[in-house]
Amino acid sequence: MGDVSDALALIRRGAEEILVEAELAEKLATGRPLRIKAGFDPTAPDLHLGHTVLINKLRHFQDLGHEILFLIGDFTGLIGDPTGKNATRPPLSREQIELNARTYQDQVFKILDPQRTRVVFNSEWMDGLGAAGMIRLAAHHTVARMLERDDFAKRYAANQSIALHEFLYPLCQGYDSVALKADVELGGTDQKFNLLMGRELQRHHEQTPQTILMMPLLEGLDGVNKMSKSLNNYIGINEPPGEIFGKVMSISDDLMWRYYELLSFLPSADIAAQRQSVTEGRNPRDVKIALAVELVARFHGPAAAQAAVEDFAARFQRGVMPEEMPEVSVPVGAGMVVTQVLRQAGLTGSTSEAMRMIDQGGVRLDGERVADKALVLAGGQTVVLQVGKRKFARVLLT
Amino acid sequence: MGDVSDALALIRRGAEEILVEAELAEKLATGRPLRIKAGFDPTAPDLHLGHTVLINKLRHFQDLGHEILFLIGDFTGLIGDPTGKNATRPPLSREQIELNARTYQDQVFKILDPQRTRVVFNSEWMDGLGAAGMIRLAAHHTVARMLERDDFAKRYAANQSIALHEFLYPLCQGYDSVALKADVELGGTDQKFNLLMGRELQRHHEQTPQTILMMPLLEGLDGVNKMSKSLNNYIGINEPPGEIFGKVMSISDDLMWRYYELLSFLPSADIAAQRQSVTEGRNPRDVKIALAVELVARFHGPAAAQAAVEDFAARFQRGVMPEEMPEVSVPVGAGMVVTQVLRQAGLTGSTSEAMRMIDQGGVRLDGERVADKALVLAGGQTVVLQVGKRKFARVLLT
Repeated sequence: MGDVSDALALIRRGAEEILVEAELAEKLATGRPLRIKAGFDPTAPDLHLGHTVLINKLRHFQDLGHEILFLIGDFTGLIGDPTGKNATRPPLSREQIELNARTYQDQVFKILDPQRTRVVFNSEWMDGLGAAGMIRLAAHHTVARMLERDDFAKRYAANQSIALHEFLYPLCQGYDSVALKADVELGGTDQKFNLLMGRELQRHHEQTPQTILMMPLLEGLDGVNKMSKSLNNYIGINEPPGEIFGKVMSISDDLMWRYYELLSFLPSADIAAQRQSVTEGRNPRDVKIALAVELVARFHGPAAAQAAVEDFAARFQRGVMPEEMPEVSVPVGAGMVVTQVLRQAGLTGSTSEAMRMIDQGGVRLDGERVADKALVLAGGQTVVLQVGKRKFARVLLT
Repeated sequence: MGDVSDALALIRRGAEEILVEAELAEKLATGRPLRIKAGFDPTAPDLHLGHTVLINKLRHFQDLGHEILFLIGDFTGLIGDPTGKNATRPPLSREQIELNARTYQDQVFKILDPQRTRVVFNSEWMDGLGAAGMIRLAAHHTVARMLERDDFAKRYAANQSIALHEFLYPLCQGYDSVALKADVELGGTDQKFNLLMGRELQRHHEQTPQTILMMPLLEGLDGVNKMSKSLNNYIGINEPPGEIFGKVMSISDDLMWRYYELLSFLPSADIAAQRQSVTEGRNPRDVKIALAVELVARFHGPAAAQAAVEDFAARFQRGVMPEEMPEVSVPVGAGMVVTQVLRQAGLTGSTSEAMRMIDQGGVRLDGERVADKALVLAGGQTVVLQVGKRKFARVLLT
């Protein structure tokens, strides 16, 4: 199981907060495989790299020999939105949940070793808890304590209604930790209150409280906002190899180092060495290519990664694009839509012309056809934009 | 089923509040037997007249042809005090609850007709509700709404802790009304919030909301504080006939009319006639005797009532006590302990002498030996106190 301080260094990598690290060191020192819990919603999952930050951390624990408890929160999924106000959260059937769970597993097992992952469903113990058990759980917490949770406090202060069952969900999540006798629970930083609830309930049940480890939210392609579908700044793990490769190549150099820390399985020492080489003059594009290759390989296998990198190289190295072209600088702030960039780079006379050209398939970004007129380009990178057959520019996005 | 307005008059008698009376009139007008719900704690019951106020009202409904749902709250009884802080509220076993329920029935069936009373236990549906059902119930209520309940609002404002499960109990009580499809629920004035909860949950379940009828708390023998064991101002329904009779005779004339309204089954018109006769000079003692006879008969049968009244009359009319004796007036305020009264009436030289005399069995009140040195005498009545063989006084308690 290796040395405790080495293990701690790996666990600490990229983590936002560990509570309590000294307790975790003690648990690691026992040498026994720890029970590492992470909970997931049973709503139809279509994971992007943002989601994988936490799963990668599970993989670290797995690599250290610990047991992963991959918890599907089907109990609340079966309830849906009990207020009936949220039409997008209908109760799921048992069949839907099982289907979703399988879709989940197909995706996460690209990162985790299925042999050492236990997939569990909390309906297993929550169904048996009963209304009486729910009341007993609630008895150990006060209303005032619940209202301390950040989002509840804000809503209460703003006279926004808090439905009573929202107070019960953290208890359910906490009780999952009791039922699983979790040693460690992973979650996002926005989950802190609920993660701490697990510690409290375990204490009430005379268990050693779980260590909680919070991972940060991953920034999207724009490098500013968190990665999300609705912001269209994501890389989906089921996207085609060329898409993933191209999107990784589009991120800024700063964001690349962040992605290395949270998404790459390269040892920290190797990443530090890469960073050093760039400081000494190496083209960061090469390092970015290595990251893109690693990520494509993870989700589509090494052959697809090889093909993607060759395809990418072909466009640049086999002279598809001219070696010499005008260079312009466009300040894009937190990100700018591609049609604006085209106009500001002088490649089109207006944004409406840019839109037309995209519709006609006449716009390429780093050699790839642009289909999405709403595509947002982040700052901190250089891209080659092409309009029609002859207009090229190397655009420094600042 | 009689005329609706006659029925309403009987139902209204002694009631503190009816919500909503117009709805109740509609329900009565349908002519179908209504489902009348009242809930009782399954803790070992030993009823006093205060408890019977509500049971008497159930009897009124029963007399009007409606169905009584006598609900034993065994579900929460099985939970006990889940915080573990209240040693006097341990979880009850199924056997204890059944035993208590039987003790309850033995007592209430002195008032209610067992043939037309359905005894139900809420564990029947609460056990099946599950944690998911509890969450669904909670979803229809907001934290702010719960904090509006008077006692919660006060405690929250005073920074006194409210355990979370206390928010769930009103939901349980409300859900009982749903499960029973109650048309009417009876409760004390202190139960208003919980009674209203039944209306809300029934609405959510697309039932006609129950009418709620709140009965006042009965004053104890002192005429001031509510009747309770801990204040020792109660008349227990299992007390011996002579005790009940004597205690009724000890109350003030004012309180007597209150007891008539809430405890007697004499028609309101007859009570009004009694009151009129007293106004015209009749001795209120005679009217009090009639009340004492009715209550002893209710709990011990007519023969016991007959014996009690004869025993009482014997002491006064057959000359056991001297016809002539000193009369003194003692101002007792909201009530005075008997030892103080003895001293102030000049029958003993000090309260400690009075205590000694009681210990020796040498003190009598209206001919009955006083055993309790803490006995409190209420104002508004005249009693005969005797110390030893020869000292008598007719004491006007003011």
